[in-house]
Amino acid sequence: MTRKQLVEEIFAKRSYLCVGLDTDVDKIPKHLLETPDPVFQFNKAIIDATKDLCVAYKINTAFYEARGLKGWDEMERTVNYIPSSHFKIADAKRGDIGNTSTQYAKAFFETLNFDAITVAPYMGHDSVLPFLEFKDKWTIVLGLTSNPGASDFELQQLFKKAEVLQEGVHISKTQTGYLYEAVLSKASGWGSPENLMFVIGATQGSEFANIRKLTPHHFYLVPGVGFQGGSLKEISEHALTADCGLLVNVSRAIIYASKKENFAEEAGILAKQYQLEMNNYISTPK
Amino acid sequence: MTRKQLVEEIFAKRSYLCVGLDTDVDKIPKHLLETPDPVFQFNKAIIDATKDLCVAYKINTAFYEARGLKGWDEMERTVNYIPSSHFKIADAKRGDIGNTSTQYAKAFFETLNFDAITVAPYMGHDSVLPFLEFKDKWTIVLGLTSNPGASDFELQQLFKKAEVLQEGVHISKTQTGYLYEAVLSKASGWGSPENLMFVIGATQGSEFANIRKLTPHHFYLVPGVGFQGGSLKEISEHALTADCGLLVNVSRAIIYASKKENFAEEAGILAKQYQLEMNNYISTPK
Repeated sequence: MTRKQLVEEIFAKRSYLCVGLDTDVDKIPKHLLETPDPVFQFNKAIIDATKDLCVAYKINTAFYEARGLKGWDEMERTVNYIPSSHFKIADAKRGDIGNTSTQYAKAFFETLNFDAITVAPYMGHDSVLPFLEFKDKWTIVLGLTSNPGASDFELQQLFKKAEVLQEGVHISKTQTGYLYEAVLSKASGWGSPENLMFVIGATQGSEFANIRKLTPHHFYLVPGVGFQGGSLKEISEHALTADCGLLVNVSRAIIYASKKENFAEEAGILAKQYQLEMNNYISTPK
Repeated sequence: MTRKQLVEEIFAKRSYLCVGLDTDVDKIPKHLLETPDPVFQFNKAIIDATKDLCVAYKINTAFYEARGLKGWDEMERTVNYIPSSHFKIADAKRGDIGNTSTQYAKAFFETLNFDAITVAPYMGHDSVLPFLEFKDKWTIVLGLTSNPGASDFELQQLFKKAEVLQEGVHISKTQTGYLYEAVLSKASGWGSPENLMFVIGATQGSEFANIRKLTPHHFYLVPGVGFQGGSLKEISEHALTADCGLLVNVSRAIIYASKKENFAEEAGILAKQYQLEMNNYISTPK
């Protein structure tokens, strides 16, 4: 999917909602467990109930891998069931040396029909570049994540000695910035706003204005709204751009809205609430 | 597998060789493609030919995921075929927020019968801790990797202001160290040398002495010998400990030693060469 197609879809629906299919067989309604194919039936019902209200689905691969072969099959059928109008994200957090990243890219862009994959930046440029070589596919690099562990490394200061020209004289200065800022800055140069996004956790509200300054044109995939407590209002105020620039993911708060027979209807009601709130924030397209 | 069992196996075989099963269907001998199950047949033959010479196998999950459902099945059967005497590593580079990392741990430690998984540290403690909760299972955290991209972040200096006591006076000092050193130092505290190892790339020879000082008791999984050009001699001189402390992985240089019908025999000859060289370096157990 191209950026243009994604932006058009967002403004047509007045929604930048991504629904996260972190489908855990221990958390889905009990009555589904009596059917032969509970995980896929659950996903299918959630997709049917939310597809008019969201523009993207994010599949958390861990929940499917935990179920082995059966889970991989459920993931494949779920991706294929998502309408082609929707942006399909493999939340897989992959990344390895070049020839291995190429294999991961094939797995999610060719063997499975995803539009995008989340990628961990720790190993640097040659672990990310192979994902960027696929036409109309997207690489979503982890920037600043929503979990407490973000403070361990992402929010540590990097040290840099820099030569600065001050009133015609070269002066040696010490510059610092967060590791995640270095990731945003370097990774921005590996791709373009047409094929690269960043994961920015919604729980990092106070950092959003700064982040938007660093990367004014990139889309952000924003997890952490809902169960993890991030504020949709706050991130929208700080990070929305003229062509939206946000995909806000909600997983558990929508898909587990109810454990009763009407779970899909309840999920749809929650998705509608998010869409209505987004409608208030989103600008009119230029 | 416990550390004691692993160390016993190493000294019994006088080998710290790990064979990497990065099995790419485009690179295996052509005659296998005429059989109904070429990837598994290839792995089976390589395992049979090398199992007396190595103590571990590392399965690079990307190569199996790229083949979809069929690949996941091949991976499962390959893990099950590896003898229980051998340390089985899922080279999967996973890591996500807590509840998701738990699902990845289940995938590789319970659904699949691996002893260890490689984990990316970028997201911090709560992305790694869930893997450490499984008894007799190992978490192998990326420290300093073998690829050129290691210089992008892993080898960047972290900045830290510290209060130092100098001749009875508190002085504010600036301390710096590589990001990867901070990873080694923090992650060491999340687990113990009984359940946590580090990935240290063999191409980082000059750093090995320093790394061993920082983490004297941990095992390292060392990729990058063979095709990537790392020196077995250099890393063994700098990083071997009294109970070995190293698993040196060789993938392509062994498994693709020949494309002919005798590929497994040739792989065995290469593995034997590595084992003989290791026999020269390894100490007598205390």
